[in-house]
Amino acid sequence: MGAEAKQTEEWADVTPDAARRLVTAAVAAFAERGYHATTTRDIAGRAGMSPAALYIHYRTKEELLYRISSVGHRLALDILRRARDSEGTPAERLARAVRAFVRWHAEHHTTARVVQYELGALGEEHYAEVVGLRRETDDTVRSVIEDGVASGDFDVPDVRGTALAVLSLCIDVARWFNSEGKRTPDEVGELYADLVLRMVGSAGAGEAGARERR
Amino acid sequence: MGAEAKQTEEWADVTPDAARRLVTAAVAAFAERGYHATTTRDIAGRAGMSPAALYIHYRTKEELLYRISSVGHRLALDILRRARDSEGTPAERLARAVRAFVRWHAEHHTTARVVQYELGALGEEHYAEVVGLRRETDDTVRSVIEDGVASGDFDVPDVRGTALAVLSLCIDVARWFNSEGKRTPDEVGELYADLVLRMVGSAGAGEAGARERR
Repeated sequence: MGAEAKQTEEWADVTPDAARRLVTAAVAAFAERGYHATTTRDIAGRAGMSPAALYIHYRTKEELLYRISSVGHRLALDILRRARDSEGTPAERLARAVRAFVRWHAEHHTTARVVQYELGALGEEHYAEVVGLRRETDDTVRSVIEDGVASGDFDVPDVRGTALAVLSLCIDVARWFNSEGKRTPDEVGELYADLVLRMVGSAGAGEAGARERR
Repeated sequence: MGAEAKQTEEWADVTPDAARRLVTAAVAAFAERGYHATTTRDIAGRAGMSPAALYIHYRTKEELLYRISSVGHRLALDILRRARDSEGTPAERLARAVRAFVRWHAEHHTTARVVQYELGALGEEHYAEVVGLRRETDDTVRSVIEDGVASGDFDVPDVRGTALAVLSLCIDVARWFNSEGKRTPDEVGELYADLVLRMVGSAGAGEAGARERR
């Protein structure tokens, strides 16, 4: 390869597209073999790049994991916040939050698994940041449940525990969801919205979903 | 070391105790670094044994994973079957099943995580066997829910989906449970029994648990 062609190739890696390819390759590698069994060389190879080219974007494997984890947590948080701040009764907003959150975990189950299962491999500062995002996620769900309790629409003896259980139920979709399975992400979201309204003792269980679909 | 002492040492490894030590060491290693990043040498080292001594009990790393996975799945299935076959109304039996299943996943969260997250690393035959055990687990929970629907105690539009969600909710306790957290395994079991009775539309939600504790 001539010096000029080589330089062009090197520049080609300094693009947002290359960073995206690396993140996609890292998600696939971490999901398949686990974080600790994956090397930066494996990731670069999957992305069709050299280890040196990877290094332009991410100095360490941990930086890649942090990128995946922080983007994943921010997206999930955004989804919940949009539902919390949307129009409608607490039951409608909670159903909307569950539906969107479940759909995301079903559609992005490989990313979500890496995000959830490799948390312990993050460096100390990055871990603290992600724990902060998780706390905000809990708070968002809890505040919708509190709204429903305040308005008398929900009957929830243990708001904190119930919010935790609701999130746990939705996150675990990433573990068992199978793209070739019988249920689509939307169908799981619909079922779960109804189950969650039942968990919070909403009189509108089975109805908020139906209203939403009209 | 004299030949005699060496022979005694070798025999010491051919005991159930040595096999147990190896399984314990494997669970810790898999949970910490993942299955693929763990070597049989790591496991033997953690168990205070030589790789050759490990080989007496388990010929491959996969055999150790299979042992952990199959014992874990059988224990979980037994817990659910005992509750299914116990005395009482469907609500009481379902609450009992959830309470015991959650307690197990909280107390044995490290083992349960390995069992759930490393399924894909099992060999083909072992995988098929474990999938069979998981199907029986689903069937057990479903049959208690079906009993409640038949007796008119539960109101469940989607029995299969609800059984799956109930199991998912309980299994995910292994992911988030923290031995130093605010809730004990029993407290989580109690909360979850109530939430699950709500999910199945049981009139006795919040009561079956209270009855059980008396």
